[in-house]
Amino acid sequence: MQHIIQQLSEIEQLKNICHEQGNSVSMPSVEVLGNIVQITRSLLFPGYFGEAAINEQTLIYHIGIQVERLQRLLAQQIKSGLCFEGTQSCSEQLDTVAQQKAQAFIEQLPDIRKQLQTDVVAAYNGDPAAKSYGEVIFCYPAIRAISNYRIAHALLQLDVPLIPRIIAEMAHSETGIDIHPGATIGNYFTIDHGTGVVIGETAVIGNNVKLYQGVTLGAKSFPLDEAGNPIKGIDRHPKIGNNVIIYANSTLLGNIHVGDGAIIGGNIWVDKDVPAGAKLRQNPNPTSLHSAGGNL
Amino acid sequence: MQHIIQQLSEIEQLKNICHEQGNSVSMPSVEVLGNIVQITRSLLFPGYFGEAAINEQTLIYHIGIQVERLQRLLAQQIKSGLCFEGTQSCSEQLDTVAQQKAQAFIEQLPDIRKQLQTDVVAAYNGDPAAKSYGEVIFCYPAIRAISNYRIAHALLQLDVPLIPRIIAEMAHSETGIDIHPGATIGNYFTIDHGTGVVIGETAVIGNNVKLYQGVTLGAKSFPLDEAGNPIKGIDRHPKIGNNVIIYANSTLLGNIHVGDGAIIGGNIWVDKDVPAGAKLRQNPNPTSLHSAGGNL
Amino acid sequence: MQHIIQQLSEIEQLKNICHEQGNSVSMPSVEVLGNIVQITRSLLFPGYFGEAAINEQTLIYHIGIQVERLQRLLAQQIKSGLCFEGTQSCSEQLDTVAQQKAQAFIEQLPDIRKQLQTDVVAAYNGDPAAKSYGEVIFCYPAIRAISNYRIAHALLQLDVPLIPRIIAEMAHSETGIDIHPGATIGNYFTIDHGTGVVIGETAVIGNNVKLYQGVTLGAKSFPLDEAGNPIKGIDRHPKIGNNVIIYANSTLLGNIHVGDGAIIGGNIWVDKDVPAGAKLRQNPNPTSLHSAGGNL
Amino acid sequence: MQHIIQQLSEIEQLKNICHEQGNSVSMPSVEVLGNIVQITRSLLFPGYFGEAAINEQTLIYHIGIQVERLQRLLAQQIKSGLCFEGTQSCSEQLDTVAQQKAQAFIEQLPDIRKQLQTDVVAAYNGDPAAKSYGEVIFCYPAIRAISNYRIAHALLQLDVPLIPRIIAEMAHSETGIDIHPGATIGNYFTIDHGTGVVIGETAVIGNNVKLYQGVTLGAKSFPLDEAGNPIKGIDRHPKIGNNVIIYANSTLLGNIHVGDGAIIGGNIWVDKDVPAGAKLRQNPNPTSLHSAGGNL
Amino acid sequence: MQHIIQQLSEIEQLKNICHEQGNSVSMPSVEVLGNIVQITRSLLFPGYFGEAAINEQTLIYHIGIQVERLQRLLAQQIKSGLCFEGTQSCSEQLDTVAQQKAQAFIEQLPDIRKQLQTDVVAAYNGDPAAKSYGEVIFCYPAIRAISNYRIAHALLQLDVPLIPRIIAEMAHSETGIDIHPGATIGNYFTIDHGTGVVIGETAVIGNNVKLYQGVTLGAKSFPLDEAGNPIKGIDRHPKIGNNVIIYANSTLLGNIHVGDGAIIGGNIWVDKDVPAGAKLRQNPNPTSLHSAGGNL
Amino acid sequence: MQHIIQQLSEIEQLKNICHEQGNSVSMPSVEVLGNIVQITRSLLFPGYFGEAAINEQTLIYHIGIQVERLQRLLAQQIKSGLCFEGTQSCSEQLDTVAQQKAQAFIEQLPDIRKQLQTDVVAAYNGDPAAKSYGEVIFCYPAIRAISNYRIAHALLQLDVPLIPRIIAEMAHSETGIDIHPGATIGNYFTIDHGTGVVIGETAVIGNNVKLYQGVTLGAKSFPLDEAGNPIKGIDRHPKIGNNVIIYANSTLLGNIHVGDGAIIGGNIWVDKDVPAGAKLRQNPNPTSLHSAGGNL
Repeated sequence: MQHIIQQLSEIEQLKNICHEQGNSVSMPSVEVLGNIVQITRSLLFPGYFGEAAINEQTLIYHIGIQVERLQRLLAQQIKSGLCFEGTQSCSEQLDTVAQQKAQAFIEQLPDIRKQLQTDVVAAYNGDPAAKSYGEVIFCYPAIRAISNYRIAHALLQLDVPLIPRIIAEMAHSETGIDIHPGATIGNYFTIDHGTGVVIGETAVIGNNVKLYQGVTLGAKSFPLDEAGNPIKGIDRHPKIGNNVIIYANSTLLGNIHVGDGAIIGGNIWVDKDVPAGAKLRQNPNPTSLHSAGGNL
Repeated sequence: MQHIIQQLSEIEQLKNICHEQGNSVSMPSVEVLGNIVQITRSLLFPGYFGEAAINEQTLIYHIGIQVERLQRLLAQQIKSGLCFEGTQSCSEQLDTVAQQKAQAFIEQLPDIRKQLQTDVVAAYNGDPAAKSYGEVIFCYPAIRAISNYRIAHALLQLDVPLIPRIIAEMAHSETGIDIHPGATIGNYFTIDHGTGVVIGETAVIGNNVKLYQGVTLGAKSFPLDEAGNPIKGIDRHPKIGNNVIIYANSTLLGNIHVGDGAIIGGNIWVDKDVPAGAKLRQNPNPTSLHSAGGNL
Repeated sequence: MQHIIQQLSEIEQLKNICHEQGNSVSMPSVEVLGNIVQITRSLLFPGYFGEAAINEQTLIYHIGIQVERLQRLLAQQIKSGLCFEGTQSCSEQLDTVAQQKAQAFIEQLPDIRKQLQTDVVAAYNGDPAAKSYGEVIFCYPAIRAISNYRIAHALLQLDVPLIPRIIAEMAHSETGIDIHPGATIGNYFTIDHGTGVVIGETAVIGNNVKLYQGVTLGAKSFPLDEAGNPIKGIDRHPKIGNNVIIYANSTLLGNIHVGDGAIIGGNIWVDKDVPAGAKLRQNPNPTSLHSAGGNL
Repeated sequence: MQHIIQQLSEIEQLKNICHEQGNSVSMPSVEVLGNIVQITRSLLFPGYFGEAAINEQTLIYHIGIQVERLQRLLAQQIKSGLCFEGTQSCSEQLDTVAQQKAQAFIEQLPDIRKQLQTDVVAAYNGDPAAKSYGEVIFCYPAIRAISNYRIAHALLQLDVPLIPRIIAEMAHSETGIDIHPGATIGNYFTIDHGTGVVIGETAVIGNNVKLYQGVTLGAKSFPLDEAGNPIKGIDRHPKIGNNVIIYANSTLLGNIHVGDGAIIGGNIWVDKDVPAGAKLRQNPNPTSLHSAGGNL
Repeated sequence: MQHIIQQLSEIEQLKNICHEQGNSVSMPSVEVLGNIVQITRSLLFPGYFGEAAINEQTLIYHIGIQVERLQRLLAQQIKSGLCFEGTQSCSEQLDTVAQQKAQAFIEQLPDIRKQLQTDVVAAYNGDPAAKSYGEVIFCYPAIRAISNYRIAHALLQLDVPLIPRIIAEMAHSETGIDIHPGATIGNYFTIDHGTGVVIGETAVIGNNVKLYQGVTLGAKSFPLDEAGNPIKGIDRHPKIGNNVIIYANSTLLGNIHVGDGAIIGGNIWVDKDVPAGAKLRQNPNPTSLHSAGGNL
Repeated sequence: MQHIIQQLSEIEQLKNICHEQGNSVSMPSVEVLGNIVQITRSLLFPGYFGEAAINEQTLIYHIGIQVERLQRLLAQQIKSGLCFEGTQSCSEQLDTVAQQKAQAFIEQLPDIRKQLQTDVVAAYNGDPAAKSYGEVIFCYPAIRAISNYRIAHALLQLDVPLIPRIIAEMAHSETGIDIHPGATIGNYFTIDHGTGVVIGETAVIGNNVKLYQGVTLGAKSFPLDEAGNPIKGIDRHPKIGNNVIIYANSTLLGNIHVGDGAIIGGNIWVDKDVPAGAKLRQNPNPTSLHSAGGNL
């Protein structure tokens, strides 16, 4: 196999796909980031995640210990993210930067918790099958995905590179819900079932919005730059008002506006503005009267 | 960070989102439930799951040992579920109740196996890519999701709280198929590919039904109670007859009836009854003849 | 529980669902195959996967060690796959066969890498949110799914049974993207978001094709054999030309042709040929003007 | 192998060597007890054991969390020990008993720590190779063995069965130092190197005593009861005064007294009282002048 | 570091210390052998080792499953041992040989259990601190070391290379008791405390013998062959009669005989025959009356 | 438990026994050091430790990869050791120092291997029970203990604090052999069985020396400084010439000299010089002719 080993190791073959690591710099770790999410969940929803027995007396110890672990692990990963991005040299000054960003993130946890409380209420009220807030927190994929989104969004606003994206992808893989950390989402947000939901980088969602599985808030066309490549970061996703419901598998594309209180039925393709209070639905489907084989 | 720790620990902040655990009561464990599913699979399909070498001589020892482990672990988790629900005080009498429910579940395994055998046949017959029953059992996400559903459904009928939902969510996360444990599903049931399938709590499915990926059997609107909240547990999902096929990404909503032998094409929104033998399909799609840019 | 144990162990009950293993033959291991995929990824994209510090000096050692591990583990699993299929007796000659197939696979890695390089470029160019090739390789589910597909496809062409399917299902579970190893896919292929994508066994995809989430390239109807069972392996999936874009949640079924440069809008059902350069979109959706309750 | 399985399962063959477990009672777990020891060490010597970063701010959180875990795990194991002993029926009342004993143990931790502080000083002062207290705490087997002894002794005095013995054996296996939990040992106690040291159940050791490796404080002869069996629990081990040193590999047997300030040389057999201040040593060893082969 | 890597890889440097492995041959695994010992202990002493709940109904399933696992794992390791030894080519015929040896070992388990029952009784009767047979089985290092010895001895008599030695070393590391698998040991054998005990390859021990910690039954001088190297395998260790007690730290060397009923005191060197019924003790130790410093 | 938590957290209680860690400094990790030893063993004895398949082709990859891992992990641990010692502030300059020391250690590996080759030969020649060099390398505790010693000694000579001691203690715990890293030991060194052997910090051992289990080369008395504490680091252990054998359980104390070719019998106490070629043995032991009970 010597020739294959040689071939696979040729530097010129490796353009763009080999990541050389500096001396004391490691790649962000999906495993550690999984831990970080788990710790953050246990801070946001004490007693639901983590094996420990929480009660009024012990609560503060759990919070204290988890905050300290979070600070330590998150600073590490933020540093790895900064080094990966590589816009600055991966020097020791990054340690301080990373420490500060981790701390700034932790400062936001009480606010993040307040928002997530509204999401829990929305999920509970929105699902006749939900038996209790506890069941919603512990089992509902929407809560997991929205928690990861709110965490990732906060980190992105602190200019942490790469890490928010990985945290979002972890929720995507776990729940099938893909919310870009750059999206802006209001309170009382919920997603039912959720598999296949996509919410793009520049999407904006108001308060009290409910999405069903398979809904896309995506981009349609990308203006190209002079070299023929898509222009990065351009505003290209839907803006959703307050009190909107979008049913399963509908696809909203482009920088369009959906007005307050609109209801969008399932399985439709929307690439134009939708006025407030509108109710959209798919054209009625013809029943085929003549059909030969066992299939359509 | 002391102020943040204090803030995150304030009891009044924690309404609805903190779960206090009693002394010797632990939360249901997703890890242990994963084990329980694995054990149950190894009982239902001996030789496919679990590392052991099964043959005619050793079979009974494997079955015996796994039944005993299942009884022990399941009783624990059922107790945790009962305590979590908290409608009864989490006393030691729950130990006996949990033991009995676990045993009653195990008594149903032979019947569950018989049903799953029909599902395996349906998956094999329904997929020209399937090479053998063995491949179907070992690899097909549908079999994993339907197994979890049949297990969760049996537990739910024994009035086990929370645990069935977690087992269903485990399959949802693994396969993208979200079947509520409360649904009622006949024999020879199969789902092809499956990502994005949703089957709601009060859905009823006859025998020999095949769903494709992205099919929703969901709820459309929820009657509200006097306080303006959705009424829990109301009958709100489709009833599917026998010998029905529903193609990819179609969304069936509400307590509607789809008659025997109906075939529903893909990407359509159905919120009215479908007569027996009907064949529904989406309106033909216009080809746009005039279109400037690189996109639609 | 003795009677249940007896009942679960009755041989006649176990037809089709019990896998008896020979003496020194083990089932393919999902865990080991996960390792194999991880190793292969670390060979294809050095420095991104695996914990080690890669640089020009150490690269060849990493490549060398991983090639050796891959050879060893893959040969084991291939043998397990051959024994599982059971068309040949699971003799020791299979050891040699398995060794050879593993080696032949490894010989193809440089070519697989070249193809994947084009996929990375396509994903980067096709997503305005992508910040760098590195981010694409490390985080994008499309790259994970397409890597697994290209690995599984190469193994299938070496007549390795079962293993390719398991590798494809691993990506399916992780990403929601289900690409059958038998499909044929050109260069510069990308999938955005990806959850719910299905690409069938006999699908053929040209160069520079982009799919969005929820796109199905599936089968519509299966000719039956004399016994009324679907004929296995028949050509039944779409053929997609070069430079094609298919938007979210569209379902293309049957052995149809989509010509070069076609653009297919989202949420539509396509079961007829699409000419080159065509642009298809869903019928416009009526806004319902009259609607009573809070829902559609 | 069926006949061997039958034979190994015959109940009459299993007298005295089979332990039947009740329904919800598990054996004490060596793994959990290892955890308990680790937690206790981390409470006694904060910052040395356990991965967390300790400082003045975070200290109380660590202590709080570990006390809670210790209470929970220890109560479980104490219950298992009580059930194993089986003098009471393994009812739920044991839960309360076990909780109380665990709590009573934790109440003693501050005193145990004070005693261990004196042992650390003794080890440091007694070894010219010791560089710091920290090195002694972190590396010296004597500290590990004496910690386990002081923990086990406290549990034994609370009438916890079996568990103290297991904790002592864990130190024995780790360090080669075998101190029975029943022994009584004063302050400023140290053992150098320690492999092979044995301290019996009814041994009593004063303050400021130092033992070297291989020293035995054992029993010599056991009075028999009428049935010819040794009488259990009789006082049969040495009583050592204050300020005593015993050199390597000496064997002190029986209920003898070694007076304050005595020094006992290595490799000697002592089965009579040793007066205060005495200095014992082995008879001088003759050099053999005539010896044929390569050996003695 | 390239030059060091080169240097460490030079083949001529590696004489005698590099083990080249064949293609499908792995080294014996200390981890798997640890499992094998654990399984065997759980077969010999049901209910004490392993997490399962044993009772009359479930016993046979546990035995059945463990026998099957033992057969499988042991055959693997025996093959690895045979390949390591390398007196035969490591062909596939070794699979059959290994299977047979594993089976022959399992056939002996009932007899090994009978012998170990006598050892448990001896340990219990010989230690006034022992509270029950259960405590002896679960905690006493002697039982662990003697179990490993009896297992290793049985394997050695089946001409299994290397594996018995590793099993003995595992007990040595765990307990400090080093019994060569080649030694011959009768019933009702016990070792108190045990650290430092050594029993050589050609030692023979009668029934009802008790050793204390630090006792050596070793070799004194080795006849050399013509090349000046010790002759391998020659009979060179003590032969101990029935009903003998040897106290702590005594060293018996050479092919000497110790007659029935002899009692040998501690800390003595014995290289001559000891008649039946003799009682040996060390010369009395002089108390030094004049001694200056703080030490001897 | 709040009062206990408070009490255990009082800073004044924690003098000398609490280790405060700096921000990005972690304690040395026993687990990582275990890895480091395992890696080093796999470099010194390729093919024996580690799961990989070594042969002439793959050897250099294994060596390369392990050298890189060793460099990385060892530098980390050395830094932790330097910070623990705390004589310098734990700044980032320590990273460079630690890197250099790790590299300097690796440079010595070829020489360490050469010495260990002589030790393997000595162990093989010195034990008639040894079947092959391979068995000696793979199973003999002496080789494990001497390897750890030679590793630890090299690190100590590079002024690495704490780490060498931990590595020595790991071997002590595993084998019962306690060699201080500061000792100086020649070639062809072996220890038979080994449990209880102690070799002190300032001991010097020539070439071709063999020790048996329980041999101590220790210190007898320590000169005190003005404060009454032992003077640290003083020369206080035996100096052993070439070609010396010391039998089991003998205790040599103090800065004495044992001349070339001396043979020292077992169980004796030696605190005076032993001339070259001398053969020492214990006084003959009287057989007691009159003895009442069942014991001595």
